[in-house]
Amino acid sequence: MYIILVYDIGEKRVAKMLKLCRRYLNWIQNSVFEGEITSVKLKELIHEARRIMEEEKDSLIIFKSREEKWLEKQIVGKEKNDLDNIL
Amino acid sequence: MYIILVYDIGEKRVAKMLKLCRRYLNWIQNSVFEGEITSVKLKELIHEARRIMEEEKDSLIIFKSREEKWLEKQIVGKEKNDLDNIL
Repeated sequence: MYIILVYDIGEKRVAKMLKLCRRYLNWIQNSVFEGEITSVKLKELIHEARRIMEEEKDSLIIFKSREEKWLEKQIVGKEKNDLDNIL
Repeated sequence: MYIILVYDIGEKRVAKMLKLCRRYLNWIQNSVFEGEITSVKLKELIHEARRIMEEEKDSLIIFKSREEKWLEKQIVGKEKNDLDNIL
């Protein structure tokens, strides 16, 4: 399936979460990722994310679509975060 | 159409952008919104967003789907940002 993942996470935990998500998905903005993923891999990702997150403070939203073609993406402004060059 | 909108915007401009997006969409996380919108209203929203944004620094990503049913949403952790009660 194709997913969009967005996290809202405490600053102290951001670096770990970013690293985790980049292992599974493509990074498209500060806290936004997208990509094809199997349901097994997604479960694995969520399991690992829960270990990083403080569930009372942090959140993770995942939008799932059976196929990427059902979603059209439009970017306004800056295409990509500079952090990409640093990390 | 049904859209997901995510912004990554300089702190000084966040309050204005939040206010703008809430006029058109439902706020689901820090910088994430979703909702049904017509293409005319979406153009209007993007036009107003551009007036707030610094296009070399800020970005706005919009995922468009013809129908909401094509997307399944999963939330891990905290359901909603506290800011909702303040603003």
